[in-house]
Amino acid sequence: MSSHLKKLRVKIRENQLDALLVSNATNRRYLSGFTGSAGFLFITQSDAVLATDFRYVEQAGIQSPDFRIARIGGGFAGWFPELVNTLGARQIGFESDDLTLASYRQLVKAARKLPPKSRPSLVSTQGMIESVRAVKDVDEIRLIEKAADLADAAEEYAVTSLRPGMTEKQLAWELEKFLKEKGSEGLPFDIIVASGPNSALPHAQPSDRVIESGEPVVIDLGTRTQGYTSDITRTICLGKPSAELVRISRIVQQAQDAAFAGISSGISGGEADRLARKVIEEANYGEAFGHGLGHGVGIDTHEQPRLGQNSSDILAEGMVFTIEPGIYLPVWGGVRIEDMVLLEKEGPRIITRASKLKLREGS
Amino acid sequence: MSSHLKKLRVKIRENQLDALLVSNATNRRYLSGFTGSAGFLFITQSDAVLATDFRYVEQAGIQSPDFRIARIGGGFAGWFPELVNTLGARQIGFESDDLTLASYRQLVKAARKLPPKSRPSLVSTQGMIESVRAVKDVDEIRLIEKAADLADAAEEYAVTSLRPGMTEKQLAWELEKFLKEKGSEGLPFDIIVASGPNSALPHAQPSDRVIESGEPVVIDLGTRTQGYTSDITRTICLGKPSAELVRISRIVQQAQDAAFAGISSGISGGEADRLARKVIEEANYGEAFGHGLGHGVGIDTHEQPRLGQNSSDILAEGMVFTIEPGIYLPVWGGVRIEDMVLLEKEGPRIITRASKLKLREGS
Repeated sequence: MSSHLKKLRVKIRENQLDALLVSNATNRRYLSGFTGSAGFLFITQSDAVLATDFRYVEQAGIQSPDFRIARIGGGFAGWFPELVNTLGARQIGFESDDLTLASYRQLVKAARKLPPKSRPSLVSTQGMIESVRAVKDVDEIRLIEKAADLADAAEEYAVTSLRPGMTEKQLAWELEKFLKEKGSEGLPFDIIVASGPNSALPHAQPSDRVIESGEPVVIDLGTRTQGYTSDITRTICLGKPSAELVRISRIVQQAQDAAFAGISSGISGGEADRLARKVIEEANYGEAFGHGLGHGVGIDTHEQPRLGQNSSDILAEGMVFTIEPGIYLPVWGGVRIEDMVLLEKEGPRIITRASKLKLREGS
Repeated sequence: MSSHLKKLRVKIRENQLDALLVSNATNRRYLSGFTGSAGFLFITQSDAVLATDFRYVEQAGIQSPDFRIARIGGGFAGWFPELVNTLGARQIGFESDDLTLASYRQLVKAARKLPPKSRPSLVSTQGMIESVRAVKDVDEIRLIEKAADLADAAEEYAVTSLRPGMTEKQLAWELEKFLKEKGSEGLPFDIIVASGPNSALPHAQPSDRVIESGEPVVIDLGTRTQGYTSDITRTICLGKPSAELVRISRIVQQAQDAAFAGISSGISGGEADRLARKVIEEANYGEAFGHGLGHGVGIDTHEQPRLGQNSSDILAEGMVFTIEPGIYLPVWGGVRIEDMVLLEKEGPRIITRASKLKLREGS
C-alpha cells in the first residue's frame, strides 16, 4: 500500500494541492488496505490519517500500518477543522464524484469553523486516484492472476457440469458453489448464465430456462482474491454447436484476435475498440455489438481504463483490462468472449486461459 | 408500487414541490419496481417518468408500468431541461444525501439551459422517500414475513448443523448454501458466525476458528424475497451452555422482553432503546451494550426508523424493525438476540420465530 500512497503523493503535488480528502471506499482500500465500510483518508506529503468510527478503530490499526488512526464520531465538524489546523493544509482536494452534496455542505461548514487566515480552499477533484489505480504493480498483478486462475477453473468446470435438462439458474448455482468452495471472497458480480435467446441480452440474469443442445450459453463470472477481482466470459454449448453458433463465434474470436494483435501502449481506448469493431462491422454485424470492447479490472471489476467507441483513455504498460467483443442477435442469441490482459511493453499478455469453443472447420 | 407513488405525491405536495427527482437506487425500486442499476425518476402530481439508458429500457417497460420510460444517454443536459419544460415544473426537489456534488453541478448546468422564465429552482431534500418507506403496506409485510420465515428456517438449520470440529467459516457456508438453495435472492448482508471471544465483536467476520462447546455462537443472517429483506440473530451453543452463557443470555432476553412489552406507536426510537438498555444497565452491563436497539427493515436491511440512544424517529403503526439488544464482553464473548417486529395498534407483533437457547433454571 505504501507504494500506492507514494504514487498518489506525486499526483497531489502535480495538482498543486497540500492534501487530499478521500471518501470513495475503493480508493480508501487501495491506499490504506482498510476494508471497513466507513471512514476518510486525509493525505499530505508528510502525513496520512485514516479517520473512522469506534466500530473500526481496532481493525484500521491492524490493516493500515502506514496511517495514523483517528477515532471520529458525528460529521466533519468534529475532526476536520482540527486536522486541517494541525497539518496546516491550505489547498485541500476532495472527490466530487463521490461526496454527496449533503456531505459536501457539511464539509464546507466544518471548514468555516476555522479562523479566516487558516481556512482552507476545498478543491473539487475527479478520477485522480482512479488514474493511479489503473496501472498495476507486481503485487497487484500477482493477485489478479490468482483471481483469474480461479475464474478459469470455474469456466472449465462449467463445461464439465453442463448436463441435459439443467436450467441456467442451476448451472449458475453450481458455479457459485465451486468458486466459493475454492476460496473466492464473495463474488464481485452475479454470475451470468444466459442460454439461447436469453444470451442476446449482454446483462441477462440466470432464469429457469432449460439449456438446450447446440445453442449458445454465455457464462460470465469473476472472483475476488485479497480484494482483487477477475472477469471472464466464455460462450459454451451443450452437445455439438449449431453451424450458426460456430460461424458467429469465429467472427467474435477474429475480432478479439485483432484486438490482441493491434493493442499497444499509447493508443486510446477508442482506437482499441476500433480494432475489434472493424472486424465485426466487416462481417456485417456492427449493429449487433452494442457495448464497448472492455474495461480495467482491479479492486473494482469495472475501473479505468475504458475501452469503448468514445474513450480517450490512453492505454499504458501495467494496465489490466478485459477484451470482450460480442455479437447479440435478438431471438437467436449471442456470443461474447472475454479475456483479461496485462498490457506489457511487447503488447497485451493474456491472463485468462480457460478453453474456448472448438472452432476448427468440420468440428 | 402505485400506492407508494400515491403516498410520495402527498409528501411532494406537503413540501410545496412541483416535482421530485429521485436518484437513490432503493428509492427508485420502491417507487417504480425497476431493479436496474442506473436511472432516475421524475415525479409530478400527474406524471411519472423513469429515465434510463439503452441497457435497461426494455426491462424498465416491463417492471414499471406506472411510469413513462424515457431513454437517455450522457448526462442531465440531454434530457432534464426538456422534461422540465414539458411538465412545467418550477420547484424541483432532489436527493442531496444521494446525489454527488459532481452530479449536482451537472444538474444545475442542465437547468441553466432553460430560458430564465422557465428555469426551475432545485430544492435540496433529505429522507423524504425514506420516511414513506418506513411504514409498510400489506404487500410489503407479506414479503417481509416470507423473508423472515426463511431466515428462521436457517437459524433452526444452524442448530442442527453445528457439529464438533466445525469452524465459523464452515458453518457460515452451510447456512449460505441453505438460504440460496431455499430461494433467497442473494444475501442482503454477509452471514455472521462468531464464536467464543470472536462473538464479543458485533460485526465479526466468520474465521477459521473451531467452535467449542459451551461457548456463545452468534449467528446473524438475513434473506431477500422479491426485494424485501429479513434480519435475525440467535446466540446458540454447541453442547451444554456454560453457566455464564445462560446468565448473560437471560439478561439480554429480559431486555428484549422489556422492549416487546413497552414499545408502542408514538414513542421515539430513543425511548424504545431506553426500555431495553435500562434492564442491561440494572444488571451492570450498560457499558457492554455498545450499539443501538434496532433499525427498520425493508428493501434495505437497515432503513428508517432507527432505534438508538439519540434517535428522535417516532415509531408508528406499520413500521417493521428489529429489536436486538446485546452484551459484549471482551475475551469472554457476546450474546445478541435479534427479532423483527411489525408495530401494530396493540404493540409490536414478533415476526421472526426461530427457537432460542433454553434458559430455564437447571436446563
